[in-house]
Amino acid sequence: MGRWEPNARGRLEQAALELYVERGYEQTPVAEITRRAGLTERTFFRHFADKREVLFAGSGRLEELCAGAVAAAPPAATPMEAAVAALDAAADVFEERGDLVRLRQSVIDANAELRERELIKLASLSGALADALRDRGVADLTARLAAEAAIAVLKVAFGRWIHGPGEQTLRQLLAECVDALGAAVAGEAV
Amino acid sequence: MGRWEPNARGRLEQAALELYVERGYEQTPVAEITRRAGLTERTFFRHFADKREVLFAGSGRLEELCAGAVAAAPPAATPMEAAVAALDAAADVFEERGDLVRLRQSVIDANAELRERELIKLASLSGALADALRDRGVADLTARLAAEAAIAVLKVAFGRWIHGPGEQTLRQLLAECVDALGAAVAGEAV
Repeated sequence: MGRWEPNARGRLEQAALELYVERGYEQTPVAEITRRAGLTERTFFRHFADKREVLFAGSGRLEELCAGAVAAAPPAATPMEAAVAALDAAADVFEERGDLVRLRQSVIDANAELRERELIKLASLSGALADALRDRGVADLTARLAAEAAIAVLKVAFGRWIHGPGEQTLRQLLAECVDALGAAVAGEAV
Repeated sequence: MGRWEPNARGRLEQAALELYVERGYEQTPVAEITRRAGLTERTFFRHFADKREVLFAGSGRLEELCAGAVAAAPPAATPMEAAVAALDAAADVFEERGDLVRLRQSVIDANAELRERELIKLASLSGALADALRDRGVADLTARLAAEAAIAVLKVAFGRWIHGPGEQTLRQLLAECVDALGAAVAGEAV
C-alpha cells in the first residue's frame, strides 16, 4: 500500500466522470484520470480494476443495500412493499450523490457497451431482490414478479428523475410509478 | 443471388443450433454450420450477418408481431390487456417453434455475451411495446410501465416454460404470471 491519500477513491471517481463527459469514455486513458485527480496510476488500480469499474463499482453495494432493506421491512409488509422499501433505500443514495449520478448516467447513455453493462447490473439487482424476498418466505413466482416489477418501476422513475424538470424527488417519482403500475396492472384504462 | 435452396434459412438455423449445443457457440465456425446444413457459406451470409445473428435474427420480426398485436387489440382494451395480447402473440410463435426455442435458449444461457445480447433485445422489445401503446393514446408513464411489466411477465413465464415440467402452455404460464403480478402489486401478501 502506498501513502494514505485523503478520499482518493472519491477524487478518482470525480475526475473520471468529468473526463468521460468532456472527452468521451473511450477517449479517456487512466493516465488522464490520475493526472486530473493528482494521484498515481498505482493508486487508481488499488481502487478500480479498470476505467469501466469506476462506473459500476457501486453496484455491488447497491445490491447489498437493497437486499438489506427487503430483509429489514416489517414482517407485515407485502412483497411489493418490501421491494419498494429497497427502491427507497437506493433512492436516498442516488439523491445524496445527485450530481455524480447524473454525470455517470450521461456517460452510460452515450455508450452502447456501457448501456449493456447497465442492463446486466439491473438484471443482477432483480435477482438479488428476488432472493431477498424468498428469504422472507415469499413464494418463488411472486418473488420473481415483485422483483421484476420493482426494477421496472426503478427504470422508469430513474429516467424521469434524470431527464425530467427536477421538481420531484426520486422517492416521489418512485411512489408515482408504483401507483401507475398498480393502476395499469389492475386494468384501469389510463 | 445463387440458386434457390429449399428452406435454406431453416436448415442453417437448425444446423447452427445443434452445433452450438453440441460443441459450444464459441467453438462452432460458420464452415461447420454450412457443412452440416449441406449449403455454402455464400448462402449462409445471404441469410445471416454472422453466427450470432442466427440466434437473434427473429427479434425484429418478434417486435413487429408484438407491436402489431398491441395495435390490433380492441379499442376498449386496457394498456395491460393490449400488452398481454402482444405476449400471447409471441407465445404462439414460441410454441410453434418449441424445440428450436429451447435449443436456442440453452445456447444463450451458456454464454455471457449472448445473455447480454438477449437483455438488450428485451429492452428493445419493451421500447417497441411502449411506442405501440403510446400510438393507442396511452399516457407516456402508463405506456412505459405497462410495457416493462409485460416484459417482466414474459421473462418469468418464459423461464418457467423452458425449465418447468412442461405441463402448461406458455399462454397459460403468461396468464398465471399476469395474475400473480396483479396480486403482488395490489399488495396481497402471497
